[in-house]
Amino acid sequence: MSLEESFQKLCVSGSEADSTPVKSLVFKPKTAKSATPVPVVVVALQTTTTPSPLIAQVTALKDPRLARDDLFKTFFKCDSAKAFTLAFLSNAETEFKLLIDNQLESLDDTTTLQLNDSLFIKKSALLQFLNGLAFKPQSVDFTQEVAKKEEPKKKQAAPTNAALEDAKLIGITVDKAKDFPGWYQQILTKGEMLDYYDVSGCYILRPPSYAIWENIQKWFDSRIKNIGVENAYFPMFVSSRVLEREKDHVEGFAPEVAWVTRAGSSELEEPIAIRPTSETVMYPYYAKWIQSYRDLPLKLNQWNSVVRWEFKHPQPFLRTREFLWQEGHTAFLTEKEATDEVLQILDFYAGVYEELLAVPVVKGTKTEKEKFAGGEFTTTVEGYIPQTGRGIQGATSHHLGQNFSKMFNLSVENPLGADHPKIFAYQNSWGLSTRVIGVMVMIHSDNKGLVIPPRVSQRQAVVIPVGITKKTTPEQRKQIHDSAYEIEKRLKQAGIRAFGDYNDNYTPGWKFSQYELKGVPLRIELGPKDIEKNQAVVVRRNDSRKYIVSLDELESRIPEILDELHNDLYNKAKEAFDTHRVIVNEWKDFVPNLNKKNVILSPWCGVTECEEDIKESSAKRDDGEEFEQDDKAPSMGAKSLCIPFQQPELKEGQKCVKCERKAVNYCMFGRSY
Amino acid sequence: MSLEESFQKLCVSGSEADSTPVKSLVFKPKTAKSATPVPVVVVALQTTTTPSPLIAQVTALKDPRLARDDLFKTFFKCDSAKAFTLAFLSNAETEFKLLIDNQLESLDDTTTLQLNDSLFIKKSALLQFLNGLAFKPQSVDFTQEVAKKEEPKKKQAAPTNAALEDAKLIGITVDKAKDFPGWYQQILTKGEMLDYYDVSGCYILRPPSYAIWENIQKWFDSRIKNIGVENAYFPMFVSSRVLEREKDHVEGFAPEVAWVTRAGSSELEEPIAIRPTSETVMYPYYAKWIQSYRDLPLKLNQWNSVVRWEFKHPQPFLRTREFLWQEGHTAFLTEKEATDEVLQILDFYAGVYEELLAVPVVKGTKTEKEKFAGGEFTTTVEGYIPQTGRGIQGATSHHLGQNFSKMFNLSVENPLGADHPKIFAYQNSWGLSTRVIGVMVMIHSDNKGLVIPPRVSQRQAVVIPVGITKKTTPEQRKQIHDSAYEIEKRLKQAGIRAFGDYNDNYTPGWKFSQYELKGVPLRIELGPKDIEKNQAVVVRRNDSRKYIVSLDELESRIPEILDELHNDLYNKAKEAFDTHRVIVNEWKDFVPNLNKKNVILSPWCGVTECEEDIKESSAKRDDGEEFEQDDKAPSMGAKSLCIPFQQPELKEGQKCVKCERKAVNYCMFGRSY
Repeated sequence: MSLEESFQKLCVSGSEADSTPVKSLVFKPKTAKSATPVPVVVVALQTTTTPSPLIAQVTALKDPRLARDDLFKTFFKCDSAKAFTLAFLSNAETEFKLLIDNQLESLDDTTTLQLNDSLFIKKSALLQFLNGLAFKPQSVDFTQEVAKKEEPKKKQAAPTNAALEDAKLIGITVDKAKDFPGWYQQILTKGEMLDYYDVSGCYILRPPSYAIWENIQKWFDSRIKNIGVENAYFPMFVSSRVLEREKDHVEGFAPEVAWVTRAGSSELEEPIAIRPTSETVMYPYYAKWIQSYRDLPLKLNQWNSVVRWEFKHPQPFLRTREFLWQEGHTAFLTEKEATDEVLQILDFYAGVYEELLAVPVVKGTKTEKEKFAGGEFTTTVEGYIPQTGRGIQGATSHHLGQNFSKMFNLSVENPLGADHPKIFAYQNSWGLSTRVIGVMVMIHSDNKGLVIPPRVSQRQAVVIPVGITKKTTPEQRKQIHDSAYEIEKRLKQAGIRAFGDYNDNYTPGWKFSQYELKGVPLRIELGPKDIEKNQAVVVRRNDSRKYIVSLDELESRIPEILDELHNDLYNKAKEAFDTHRVIVNEWKDFVPNLNKKNVILSPWCGVTECEEDIKESSAKRDDGEEFEQDDKAPSMGAKSLCIPFQQPELKEGQKCVKCERKAVNYCMFGRSY
Repeated sequence: MSLEESFQKLCVSGSEADSTPVKSLVFKPKTAKSATPVPVVVVALQTTTTPSPLIAQVTALKDPRLARDDLFKTFFKCDSAKAFTLAFLSNAETEFKLLIDNQLESLDDTTTLQLNDSLFIKKSALLQFLNGLAFKPQSVDFTQEVAKKEEPKKKQAAPTNAALEDAKLIGITVDKAKDFPGWYQQILTKGEMLDYYDVSGCYILRPPSYAIWENIQKWFDSRIKNIGVENAYFPMFVSSRVLEREKDHVEGFAPEVAWVTRAGSSELEEPIAIRPTSETVMYPYYAKWIQSYRDLPLKLNQWNSVVRWEFKHPQPFLRTREFLWQEGHTAFLTEKEATDEVLQILDFYAGVYEELLAVPVVKGTKTEKEKFAGGEFTTTVEGYIPQTGRGIQGATSHHLGQNFSKMFNLSVENPLGADHPKIFAYQNSWGLSTRVIGVMVMIHSDNKGLVIPPRVSQRQAVVIPVGITKKTTPEQRKQIHDSAYEIEKRLKQAGIRAFGDYNDNYTPGWKFSQYELKGVPLRIELGPKDIEKNQAVVVRRNDSRKYIVSLDELESRIPEILDELHNDLYNKAKEAFDTHRVIVNEWKDFVPNLNKKNVILSPWCGVTECEEDIKESSAKRDDGEEFEQDDKAPSMGAKSLCIPFQQPELKEGQKCVKCERKAVNYCMFGRSY
């Protein structure tokens, strides 16, 4: 231990009372598997906050995380993170970055610094030691603002040729076809659907997106209430004991669970988890409440938020650390009732996508590998994003079988009598989240802005007075405004979410762009000539198609046009999905078709190893990233999306697309979100 | 340090690898200020969970909490919790309790135990040392179930004479008049409104209570949308930097903030708070979004849950660690618009209480001491619980003035031009929580069970076939059932939340009790004689009043009866509040009137010190409790509840009820929740 000894010679005796505590932290950046990471050592005042995004920024390294023991061993020949002191830096043989807090540097040279319980050192001696290392330190102002994490990244990522030529600054400046992620982010923020938030991976749902969610809630809530589901609310907190009760289940969630360990200034005796989903939150109480088969079925649902602290790249609506959803949890006496309900709910989910969001989906069953951990089988609705050619899971309805009921002793006496075996309840759980909004935006919107399907849009039609010129007299102007307002009023009375923009400070053209950006389905223009002819000009957001509507038919025509718009959006999206869902029977055609932005229907053996092989074999192998990266999507392997209910006919003796086994059905594979 | 040295002699050399880690924790129970606490020392395997409720149970001490440094100094002559080792136990001169984990005891005698980084000891030596102390250790099985924290406490607390004589086990067994807290708990759990939850201070809202919340939401949501408020959703997480931005404000919440410090197995770099309310979550974004006075007003609301980790005794609905609420946050260009809205919202809140929940409230302004921290003024609706004579805050609507807008730079250019000073927005925030349900239950329900006002009740009328005897033929039985079902159907079509109970396994009497317990507002009985007479017997839940209703008038009479029921509930509660809201001009009458379960209207000077003096002077001083205790409610001092809008006339020269200053208005004081 000569190194440590030589370091200790630099040290002085000291005490907590008259020294300044200093921390030394070691980070590992995200690094390609084939490459050697460059560790980052941070030496800073205990009181200085050293956020990882800031470290990333000043070192130009990706996603630094606190290093684990293995890195300490490899780089610094130090047994563990716990045993590490700055002395070990002398052991390093390969490059590391060393960041020194400039507040520490600005201390008086004679200040005594406390490095750990027993190590004290003068500031001058510490800096001398650090400056003498093989790799030179960098001074860092940790109080500087971190540049917003995601926004600028996207902006940088946008190839310059993705800029839209005729884009005004106020509108969308990125081309959907050329820089899809940059476009997606712009469309959401400029369309005022959502804003980025101070805590990474969390987003603000602004009124236009929350209203979509409310419309979905209304539709879905009334349907589940019709089949006897009741709403309830369970707490967001779970004790670790309860969370961990179902092993398979918790394994799927454990890495993403957020833990509360402190309240005010008191440490909690036991950390408490924030629910990532509520199976284990609810079922102990189901077991308590269900005392007899007469208490079955029990069908509860809640509208709530859950937290999954994903470490992957967050994506608005699609992958967020907190998200809104509904989760239904039902328990039945018989398997048949339960499995019937699973499919009934799946139909409702398909309805949310197809009837409300104008998004086509494929219904099917998840493979063993992709099913809900702890459940019996998972049904799903799967969507498709044409720009990326990736599949996206829409919503899932799980049959849990008796797995949880046995774990939580959710059982009742057999209705046939006490001499028959008791029956464990058959359970389902099913969930639909705000992710649906992201899917909807990705599919319909365009380079002018959002396109929001009319049945969910907060505002369905905007009335805009036009044809007002300098020559227009005040009386004429008033007449136009009054007539426009009358249209707005009549539409509202007819139950259409209409509004008017009568602000004279803006030109009609400016207003058109505004409401195109925001995705209002219909624009209703009314000018002097229209009034003469007792008509209005109605323009569809999605394709600028114009309708001349007689004012006498307003209340009947506008709903029709809204419905046509919905159907056209749906049909267009369906055509894209249908033409990019191709049947591939031979492996040689698999990856080429994947690369053509298709999802693939292939005969498959149903074996998990083969599924993993397909994923591996269809991935680009040279990406070298430790983690899956969204912007490297084409490198991704194909996952199984679902085994569609609607199956192409399987030929006699058809083999699996990948292996030598016999195919048991067609499975839909694709790169996915 | 001879003590430590002598302890160290018992120690051996060891290493982490081959020893079993042991923790020693010191707790301080809740103790009267005048008494000496008895610390509890727990020696347990590191892996053993030692929940505080269990420690309370085995020691019969109240609310043990991890002790602070001062206790270590006083009792063990040890500088700090950090410096503590078991050696210091020898220093104790007054009593302490020593609990030893029986799993530790069951280890092999030769096992090496690790006490801290450097202290290792054989198990036999440790036990020898512990057994040699002045106060004898107690062996504890920490794996035992903790008896439910609140339930048994209440049951024990219930004086035996509070038991209802004619109570069946299935119904309420505690008398509202004699053991109000015990009754409240029973009524909620047996009425299936709510269940107690695994995490203390959190409760499950079961369908009957959640449905009440949904009905309130529907009513309130449509009203705020009518005045231009839009719904949105902001994340539940707040960074400490943002949370702490408004000093006065955060001080009010800091002790109750829950902190997430870990995700999966990774420590977060910075702890993240769960919102206790969203002012500081939202306003940075308001400042970003509001770029011009044309962007004002901005009126957003969210329906969400917030977390306040209260350490006081939790109470279902009234004081819970997580609760559901709505929080509205609005920003205006002018003060007038803002203050008008504050009162408009307060009227809606009064409407929720009076028009939906049949609960009378007094509208008023909070005193400086009781207003929302960081705001300009707070308006409130205050209710009254007759059984305890305590006031209860119903909901609050705050005018924040420009305090937050200056803090967050929420400003716009003056509409008069750039040469005029910029204007900071005038802001409001307002919230109504699920607490309303608790108030409603306390006021209307009785010894037969819940009484739920009809406008919010999940189910408004139950149809029950009666008069079926052994002599009834199957045809007659079918006719009765069919007629009853027909009534149910007709009521549903008329928009009444009706249902029927046609189960032949239970007697009508049993069903009557069931639905009385659950608070269904109306029972509709239908027997053979009723069918003959083309009528039904309608019985009100609240007072068993009977109506004979002709089946021809069903659709018109039932809504009338529901409205009458609502009005009668309201009037009864109003009379109780009115008769217990007394004017007291002289201090000598203050406490006696308080003790008669009154809230008090007194002339008051408006000075905070005087308000504190009133509270102090009206409290029983000999309670000796460190914390306020709910079951000691009569000992509580009177707080100011509000300065009612509706003021008794102040006499010329009237002095403050408590001090020598001149009164400025009447203030409502009372013991409160």
